[in-house]
Amino acid sequence: MKIAVCTFDGFNEIDSFVAAYILNRVHSDGWKAEITAPSQTVTSMNGVVMSAQKPLEFVSEADAVIIGSGRLTQQVARDESIMSRIRVDPERQLIASQCSGALILAGLGLVEGMPICTDLKTRPMIEADGVRVLDTPFHAEGNIASAGGCLAGQYLATWIIWRSLGREAAVDALSYVVPVGQQDEYISRALETVSPFISSAREEKAAAFQYR
Amino acid sequence: MKIAVCTFDGFNEIDSFVAAYILNRVHSDGWKAEITAPSQTVTSMNGVVMSAQKPLEFVSEADAVIIGSGRLTQQVARDESIMSRIRVDPERQLIASQCSGALILAGLGLVEGMPICTDLKTRPMIEADGVRVLDTPFHAEGNIASAGGCLAGQYLATWIIWRSLGREAAVDALSYVVPVGQQDEYISRALETVSPFISSAREEKAAAFQYR
Repeated sequence: MKIAVCTFDGFNEIDSFVAAYILNRVHSDGWKAEITAPSQTVTSMNGVVMSAQKPLEFVSEADAVIIGSGRLTQQVARDESIMSRIRVDPERQLIASQCSGALILAGLGLVEGMPICTDLKTRPMIEADGVRVLDTPFHAEGNIASAGGCLAGQYLATWIIWRSLGREAAVDALSYVVPVGQQDEYISRALETVSPFISSAREEKAAAFQYR
Repeated sequence: MKIAVCTFDGFNEIDSFVAAYILNRVHSDGWKAEITAPSQTVTSMNGVVMSAQKPLEFVSEADAVIIGSGRLTQQVARDESIMSRIRVDPERQLIASQCSGALILAGLGLVEGMPICTDLKTRPMIEADGVRVLDTPFHAEGNIASAGGCLAGQYLATWIIWRSLGREAAVDALSYVVPVGQQDEYISRALETVSPFISSAREEKAAAFQYR
């Protein structure tokens, strides 16, 4: 399971790393989430310089794609030199956006006829494009998901793990990252937030995979 | 307000960035949290290479210090060449550890006679040093705090902001990062978790500062 966490200049650190870290808690053969960027290094909105683990072309090889958020996402979504490098296949891949990453999801034509979740600052920008925004932290239809509010990155990770390896694998990954002594409330809320978007047929299919 | 987020090779990305990002949501003159490391670059436990924003010597200048977590923290706590560069002043600074960062807090002699919070993997290591570990996500005594479970980083940030600028500033910073539609439960839980460790005298002093 190759997972691309697309991260651009001006990125929000929580928005890339909460999901990426939780995904990397999964100990299943070949399962790895990697920071995927248009350039060799990217600089966060708070001045943190980070090396890309994969180039943007890795998106086309990935089994799941998360589109991170940041201060410059609207410019990225309008920059054909970057957007043309993001090759997605919504038939085969799970594709999810975090906060302003929804602008790129929309730019890729992936949210037609679908409401999305995003943060409060991005909301008016994406509504201006005619996309309906929900007052909830997570929404998914088919293979496309979106999350709003930095810490909702945990729901993107939960969705990807649950869809791919089943509910117990998601609980396992979450159990290490949630605050000590608040495990039950955190994990219950994550499962309640994501479960309406997991069909029982899909869950059975995922559970049929060997979870190592 | 200068804040050092000490980050070492093998670091856990959530453990450095959840607190750092929330702290950087504060828009108060000169308020800045920066990744502080013993070398020019540090590599995370998942292979992410990041540049330090400040050298470890910045700790002595900082008003608040967070000690991050990672796979190699026990080695760091035993490495005199690194530990001797971490100069703290618990009379003047707020000093907090995240997960295995508690090993360094203990190595600096800052938790004597005090129980601490940490993650489940670090717990036996720090108990072997004779330190009592709580089943809670956050604990503070005086100027020293500790948190356990990656996402408890939000409580470290809440404590530092509340102690420095008051409760409303902490609510402001949290309100942007919490999941959309779950703001009330997230912010209430953060305040409930941290408030037993804020004395009313301190809160009044903090509120007396101009919050810009």
